[in-house]
Amino acid sequence: MPRPTLPPLLYTDTHTSADMLYFGRVEVHDPFIAFGARGKKITAQRALEFGRVKRTGAFDVVLPQEPWLDKARQRYGAKAGVPEVIATLARAYGQRAFRVADDFPAALYLQLTKLGLRLKFADGLLFPEREIKSRWEAECIREGNRLCSVGYTVAEKTLRAARIKGRTLLYQGQPLTSERLRFAIDTAINEQGGNAQDTIVAGGDQACDPHERGSGPLRPHELIIIDIFPRVVKTGYFGDMTRTYLKGRPREVQRRLVATVREAQKRALRAMRAGVDGRSVHAACADFFTESGYETKRTQNASVGFFHGTGHGLGLAVHDPGRMSPTVPYPLKLGSVLTVEPGLYYPGLGGCRWEDVVQVTATGTKALSRHPCNWEIR
Amino acid sequence: MPRPTLPPLLYTDTHTSADMLYFGRVEVHDPFIAFGARGKKITAQRALEFGRVKRTGAFDVVLPQEPWLDKARQRYGAKAGVPEVIATLARAYGQRAFRVADDFPAALYLQLTKLGLRLKFADGLLFPEREIKSRWEAECIREGNRLCSVGYTVAEKTLRAARIKGRTLLYQGQPLTSERLRFAIDTAINEQGGNAQDTIVAGGDQACDPHERGSGPLRPHELIIIDIFPRVVKTGYFGDMTRTYLKGRPREVQRRLVATVREAQKRALRAMRAGVDGRSVHAACADFFTESGYETKRTQNASVGFFHGTGHGLGLAVHDPGRMSPTVPYPLKLGSVLTVEPGLYYPGLGGCRWEDVVQVTATGTKALSRHPCNWEIR
Repeated sequence: MPRPTLPPLLYTDTHTSADMLYFGRVEVHDPFIAFGARGKKITAQRALEFGRVKRTGAFDVVLPQEPWLDKARQRYGAKAGVPEVIATLARAYGQRAFRVADDFPAALYLQLTKLGLRLKFADGLLFPEREIKSRWEAECIREGNRLCSVGYTVAEKTLRAARIKGRTLLYQGQPLTSERLRFAIDTAINEQGGNAQDTIVAGGDQACDPHERGSGPLRPHELIIIDIFPRVVKTGYFGDMTRTYLKGRPREVQRRLVATVREAQKRALRAMRAGVDGRSVHAACADFFTESGYETKRTQNASVGFFHGTGHGLGLAVHDPGRMSPTVPYPLKLGSVLTVEPGLYYPGLGGCRWEDVVQVTATGTKALSRHPCNWEIR
Repeated sequence: MPRPTLPPLLYTDTHTSADMLYFGRVEVHDPFIAFGARGKKITAQRALEFGRVKRTGAFDVVLPQEPWLDKARQRYGAKAGVPEVIATLARAYGQRAFRVADDFPAALYLQLTKLGLRLKFADGLLFPEREIKSRWEAECIREGNRLCSVGYTVAEKTLRAARIKGRTLLYQGQPLTSERLRFAIDTAINEQGGNAQDTIVAGGDQACDPHERGSGPLRPHELIIIDIFPRVVKTGYFGDMTRTYLKGRPREVQRRLVATVREAQKRALRAMRAGVDGRSVHAACADFFTESGYETKRTQNASVGFFHGTGHGLGLAVHDPGRMSPTVPYPLKLGSVLTVEPGLYYPGLGGCRWEDVVQVTATGTKALSRHPCNWEIR
């Protein structure tokens, strides 16, 4: 990968921008200035953040923002703000041109251009190297997926202990709901150093909407999709896995749906290796579904079948760069980490998704997630 | 407040942008197109999100993105992407000019300008009305603060049950750490429908860094800052409160520190009402600290004293528009909701912060947070 020639300039926070977290390796929840110059990573920080960023971040130089604001005001007048501080810093470091992310703030872009800075869009990733995961990063993601597995273990235990009473699942004397099961999963993950947000626990037709979190009573004999994507608090990396369960007795059509999705995942995995286009991996799933008689189409109010991508990059963001979708060309990169998550959704029958995480190798993939298949729970 | 004349255009996700969540009232984790035209809120959604957004969002029109991409390709060629889809939609709705947020993505801004759209920066808030909270919004924020109070109740119970053994606090036979106490707090909040992230539980000198989350054993006889800012999962609104505790016997200097911070908060509250400049509210705290002998200054590696703002807006973001800081002019708006959180930090002595939330009225403020003062725990 060619090394970008211009140093980066960022103005954002680490909640919004995984790029910023990647660059500075320290969480700061308000937008701040960071840039490269003279081969160093430089940031200006308010008094509030200064000490912590200096102590725990990866920046080579941490400057206090207030005196630089004073300098900017001396030069540009009392109304000087962030653009003038950046211009003042750029002048001080003799660096007048930067590369910026495509989503760099537009107003600031124009102001800096007026102040004489030359900004070039990265036209893709600001840090292309972010896509390739080091051994350490792969281990961080593996830890995220271990936390997912912790969640599934709790879910299985809970479903196993639940008692079927008519159309209800009773757990500890109360109806088992999406909310209760989500709470049990999230708490177990939290206890082990993860932060699970927006965990999906959706049964029956709710699960046919892949981003519906799920609410209300879970039903016996219905497919239940559980999609967990916790952050490892210590490192900031995510895990992301999905399993589908059924408490009770599956009908043959449900069994076949699950078997078909799991087989599609295997086909996707077999199709993956460095250099392969993500579209062809997606096609391996989509074609298999079609051949197996599972149609994908859009109806008036929703879609049915397989209507999301087969996978996406995973790292410091749940949706990291990289994807395997029907339309966007994307050659799989050696060392990149992707989810593999085919799914089928048919209201009336239910939804099934099966998601694991792999790192792309020259000859195939290396698994970064692991959890046994226990989807039928009696 | 004058009504902005141009309709808004957004391209972002609701994780990054509270504006988008405010506009559409539905969470979507990947960037998407949303805009106003003909007095309606319009969005284009991928198949994956279409049904859920249509069912649960506040948009008047939800368009499927794929056919609009096809239309854009017919007009602009096979390489058409997001900019061309927006241009195609704008043409179809006869709306060629929009207002955009200052942090609209810069590359997209330039592409749309090239495609003939006229984009005007909001130069401030994209939705100025977001700053003024309705009765319903105030109740959502109050619920967030109720969750904070749930957290403090758990913290107090835990600290009370802990046993002092030399320099250690023992709880259920094990040393009580920041991590354990944070877990207990977050779990209690999670159980009641909140999502607490990055809760601060920091004792001793750790607490002198206001954004340090805290780690390791908590010590008796040391000030412990607990800052909780949970999201109400159902509505997306945040609570944000801080309390300071001490398990054991406070020294007189610690008592005085806490009393001074609490008195500063009272002075800030007395200074607040619609029309007052946030800087003068901040000055009410800062001057009182100085008069009381508490100096604020920056040392080589950190700052001591009172070196953060007195408060910030709170709503769909933890840091919503609005602030009371030493330098930025900000006239308090009728109906806006702000935190009030003076603090003092001196390594060796420890840190204290006391944070509540109020809504600004014509004559003063209305409390949106409540938790009794039980800071000394024997």
